[in-house]
Amino acid sequence: MLMVDLIEKKRDGYTLSKEEIDFVIEGYTKGEIPDYQVSAFLMAVYLRGMNDEEATNLALSMLHSGDEMDLSMIEGVKVDKHSTGGVGDKTSLVLAPLVASFGVNFAKMSGRGLGHTGGTLDKLESIKGFNIAVSPKDFIEQVKKINIALVGQTGNLTPADKKLYALRDVTGTVSSIPLIASSIMSKKLASGADAICLDVKVGAGAFMKNIDDARHLAQLMCQIGKNCGRKMTAVLTNMDEPLGFAVGNALEVKEAIQTLNGNGPSDLTNLCLEIGAYLLVDAKKFDSLEAAKNAMLENIKNKKALNKLIDLVKAQGGDATYITDPSKFAVAKEVVEVKANQDGFVSHINALAIGHAAMLLGAGREKLEDKIDMAVGVVLNKKVGDKVKVGDTLAYVHTNGKNTEEALKEIFEAYEIASKEITSNLILDIIR
Amino acid sequence: MLMVDLIEKKRDGYTLSKEEIDFVIEGYTKGEIPDYQVSAFLMAVYLRGMNDEEATNLALSMLHSGDEMDLSMIEGVKVDKHSTGGVGDKTSLVLAPLVASFGVNFAKMSGRGLGHTGGTLDKLESIKGFNIAVSPKDFIEQVKKINIALVGQTGNLTPADKKLYALRDVTGTVSSIPLIASSIMSKKLASGADAICLDVKVGAGAFMKNIDDARHLAQLMCQIGKNCGRKMTAVLTNMDEPLGFAVGNALEVKEAIQTLNGNGPSDLTNLCLEIGAYLLVDAKKFDSLEAAKNAMLENIKNKKALNKLIDLVKAQGGDATYITDPSKFAVAKEVVEVKANQDGFVSHINALAIGHAAMLLGAGREKLEDKIDMAVGVVLNKKVGDKVKVGDTLAYVHTNGKNTEEALKEIFEAYEIASKEITSNLILDIIR
Repeated sequence: MLMVDLIEKKRDGYTLSKEEIDFVIEGYTKGEIPDYQVSAFLMAVYLRGMNDEEATNLALSMLHSGDEMDLSMIEGVKVDKHSTGGVGDKTSLVLAPLVASFGVNFAKMSGRGLGHTGGTLDKLESIKGFNIAVSPKDFIEQVKKINIALVGQTGNLTPADKKLYALRDVTGTVSSIPLIASSIMSKKLASGADAICLDVKVGAGAFMKNIDDARHLAQLMCQIGKNCGRKMTAVLTNMDEPLGFAVGNALEVKEAIQTLNGNGPSDLTNLCLEIGAYLLVDAKKFDSLEAAKNAMLENIKNKKALNKLIDLVKAQGGDATYITDPSKFAVAKEVVEVKANQDGFVSHINALAIGHAAMLLGAGREKLEDKIDMAVGVVLNKKVGDKVKVGDTLAYVHTNGKNTEEALKEIFEAYEIASKEITSNLILDIIR
Repeated sequence: MLMVDLIEKKRDGYTLSKEEIDFVIEGYTKGEIPDYQVSAFLMAVYLRGMNDEEATNLALSMLHSGDEMDLSMIEGVKVDKHSTGGVGDKTSLVLAPLVASFGVNFAKMSGRGLGHTGGTLDKLESIKGFNIAVSPKDFIEQVKKINIALVGQTGNLTPADKKLYALRDVTGTVSSIPLIASSIMSKKLASGADAICLDVKVGAGAFMKNIDDARHLAQLMCQIGKNCGRKMTAVLTNMDEPLGFAVGNALEVKEAIQTLNGNGPSDLTNLCLEIGAYLLVDAKKFDSLEAAKNAMLENIKNKKALNKLIDLVKAQGGDATYITDPSKFAVAKEVVEVKANQDGFVSHINALAIGHAAMLLGAGREKLEDKIDMAVGVVLNKKVGDKVKVGDTLAYVHTNGKNTEEALKEIFEAYEIASKEITSNLILDIIR
């Protein structure tokens, strides 16, 4: 088999066999096929597409390129969750303890990644002492003991995906449905969970610009997971505005704590209940989504979910008093308000612009070696549908002085104010 | 400007500006843009296309990536010719002395290239002592003195094209009309001729599989040349069979000598007259194609054309007695016949298969370092339209023992014999 023949085959729109896809992925992982051939191949895939069988084979090939987590020593169903990337998305911080509070194993590995704020792991590190570097053995022990672990990726999981993703990032081949689906699913399958819920973001600022593409991506990922015997759910959610109010690391952890205390933003709370319900039903804890949701509300009220977060923080070396007394989190030197200059109703908040403002303030990283400022970020005061008057505060900017003016301008411009009230649905569709 | 943005722009089907194309070519030539980004870009160009303006800008950008031959010191019109690559194509060996015999400057630089046989230069090296390594200064002096030079490329002409072509070759991005047109034209423009004739091959074995693609390629190349003030002609020729009878290095030179003696194959003779007529009219030697053709037939009859070949060989250090006594050329140890096993008429000869057979015998190179056997090759005895009976000789295989059986089989299978006589036109169209 010659790589150039496979490039030409895909270039001309033909379907690649499992053996051919394995040849590409194995050869690339071993360094036998050079970057320049793979990038031409990726562009051919981008423009010619892959059918669902090819995308499944690609996911499996990347899965088999490295180690797989063996969670079989943990009794019961293991659940996991993945989001395609939203601004203000602190869902895992709420969802994981909420689901684990029912004795369901939430065993999640994440990468640090790049973005407007840090990832889930970076956010957790705003809690003094919290350790994300947990060995596979300790990871399994922790889940067995307290049903929850949120740790950094260890071992040699999906090396092919890592190499391919880095290449896609610089060759204009990121936003391809089969490439996204196979990348996400190879990682989720390698992490070893039995039931997986995917949160697929839809909108101008997301990879998936429209509901049809998002639905296709979600269906494809669910199909790949089901082919491997996993229980799959995908939630399609609107990215017309950030999730919740807070965008920033410590700010988001505090909002997650509020949510576990029953005082969180309604969109965040509802999304956690929705995803949690599917996972709890898949874990056979409840017969119906309704029963699961009611039980979760109860575990918020009786603090079992919050206590599970405390268990997690303690197990991973963190100072749990941060959870009971959030005033301990680092705070920014200054809070500046962004004010409305017209009357009306908020019709849209450009989530990417808000995320970019948070990045400017120092909340995120462009390069892996960049340092994150845990304290800074944005807290929205008005969300889509809210009535505003001239002079009302739209958002609070928590800053330590870095790029404050630019951030203020971006946030102001991110708000669209219309004369009529607009209603927005967070959850657009569910794929099972 | 970021390369990844330009990749995405072309990926999404937008038109690139002159500045953007220059950015890609300059950055790649200097090594500032890596292969893996350029190969993704090339695949996007392959699948999304380029309009004629983009292709022209690409040709100019590659032209300006290196030196250009300055032929202004040579008085009168300088002409050149290029073929997109045919099996048995010894046109230049006949055409150059034929045109130069009228005092028109035929100043041709070629690369060695890879292929079923060597290129024009390799073929000429079957003449003892013939030297293709001529300095630009001596090249110009020679043309001034005898109106003809066939030499290897010297100087740093179109380095961008060299680098891009090597990348296209291994990334499935060769057969793209704008990429082929800009590659050929950047080289032809850099070589400095005023009037250029292009021979665009059409058929299953050629880059251009159908007449419409070939016409588009020809029109595009002519347009690029005209934009740069060159007189352009493109001849679209059928690749339903090899050109002439001989395929092999010394075998082809001998056939070229026969043709200059007036005893050549009719298809080769007619093609040389056709291309020669356009070049002579463009050089203002004749008012009409008809007058030019008659004059060329006269210069064949009176040996002026053959004598010009002798001048060329002498000027470049070769033994000119090879031209007057072709028995001096190296001959193969053995000549084996391929015979027909049915009655009928030859309807098609797979030119690529004949070329491949010649390559198997040792006439061509796969890698630049491969050594060529000048003596071996194939001489067709029957061409398309010829009547054959069982036992008739279809072709003669000149072999030194390398892969003889395989070559015989390929040649036999290359012949299609039909029950009805078929007529085939060599020249399909002319673009001016």
